[in-house]
Amino acid sequence: MQNDKIQNAIEKLKKAYACVIYDGNDREGEADLIIHAKYITPEWIERLRKNAGGLICLAIEPEIAKKMGLVFYTDILASSNFELKQMECKKTAYNDKPSFSIPVNHKEVYTGITDTDRALTIKKLAELAERAYKNEQTGTIQTGKGNLKGESIKQEFMRSFYSPGHVFLLIGRGIENRKGHTELALELARRAGMQGTMVLCEMLAPGRALSKKKAKMYAEKYGYPFLEGSDF
Amino acid sequence: MQNDKIQNAIEKLKKAYACVIYDGNDREGEADLIIHAKYITPEWIERLRKNAGGLICLAIEPEIAKKMGLVFYTDILASSNFELKQMECKKTAYNDKPSFSIPVNHKEVYTGITDTDRALTIKKLAELAERAYKNEQTGTIQTGKGNLKGESIKQEFMRSFYSPGHVFLLIGRGIENRKGHTELALELARRAGMQGTMVLCEMLAPGRALSKKKAKMYAEKYGYPFLEGSDF
Repeated sequence: MQNDKIQNAIEKLKKAYACVIYDGNDREGEADLIIHAKYITPEWIERLRKNAGGLICLAIEPEIAKKMGLVFYTDILASSNFELKQMECKKTAYNDKPSFSIPVNHKEVYTGITDTDRALTIKKLAELAERAYKNEQTGTIQTGKGNLKGESIKQEFMRSFYSPGHVFLLIGRGIENRKGHTELALELARRAGMQGTMVLCEMLAPGRALSKKKAKMYAEKYGYPFLEGSDF
Repeated sequence: MQNDKIQNAIEKLKKAYACVIYDGNDREGEADLIIHAKYITPEWIERLRKNAGGLICLAIEPEIAKKMGLVFYTDILASSNFELKQMECKKTAYNDKPSFSIPVNHKEVYTGITDTDRALTIKKLAELAERAYKNEQTGTIQTGKGNLKGESIKQEFMRSFYSPGHVFLLIGRGIENRKGHTELALELARRAGMQGTMVLCEMLAPGRALSKKKAKMYAEKYGYPFLEGSDF
């Protein structure tokens, strides 16, 4: 049984609304503007960069990330041959491990940074994730559009995208382990019965994070649900 | 002997003005808003994210990058143990290798993404680069503020910053090898006799890159020099 706030957010999420999630005063103290990746458009990328202003990231649920062969950026850095590996962030100032995986572009983009290019990269990733998610649910082998006969999700992912790119992939660590925007957003998708790929962008004010009060006002203005970490 | 356009840009650069550099129709076809890292402020980060809209990156000249122990992101990915290494971008759609090194935060930031945090990370990097640059010029060993006695630039860099962070470091490949915004911006710093750390951000319009015409109008409005790859 969901509480009313979560239930309302689930209904809105399914109707392609964005939502605003504030993590909590004891963590980043930050609100992110969030939308399910399947609804992303170039207009949405523009809105995220203008109205939120942070980094446009794509959070992916751990099961799907695993099928794609994604690992954490810190694991890549730590396994490399360079002295830079000692710079690996083990804990942020708010006491969590970072969620970053690799930054990617879809191979069909041009520079990768325009609204159109970033939307394309995310859209293609959401399509692939949808297939990964459905396979898991049904146990069937997908051989449809864009998927070579017998090609795995991982093979298709690695063939269709490259790194470095301009969409920053994040991997959820599960809400029981970490209560960051990554996990909160993915938990909302999970409760909505949707595959876990959520676009996130930090909401900024001049100099600092947008206050909780102003983030809430923004959400109300557009009819977006406003959630806090403690609602989950 | 510099041409007049470059000479004017050098004078403005030294007075803490930004400049707009358009690479060329045969390359990205993109204008970047650029400022020397030593002049960065939180207000400047805000201006870059609002008026430009792309990724806020810090281009570093190869000699300084080497002193810091920086390498290209693609080299890190390629030397890792993961299947993801096959996703390494060898050439972009506009036919160049990417300039990305690693993304970093200074250890004193909180989330790393706010205007204040990004300005702090860049400012601290510019200060370190300034010392690296002066050592090179004078051959003396720097033991001043923030630099432990006998500590190398590389040791100080790796002790003071962590990765992943929210400022994307780029390494120049030299203007004779690549004529991207990274190299053009660093070449301008070099000709101005300034150390090579330049903050760059792609100028975007709804859906696509800002047109050359509009980028030029923006530069004129604020009194910023407008340069093209062919001016160098």
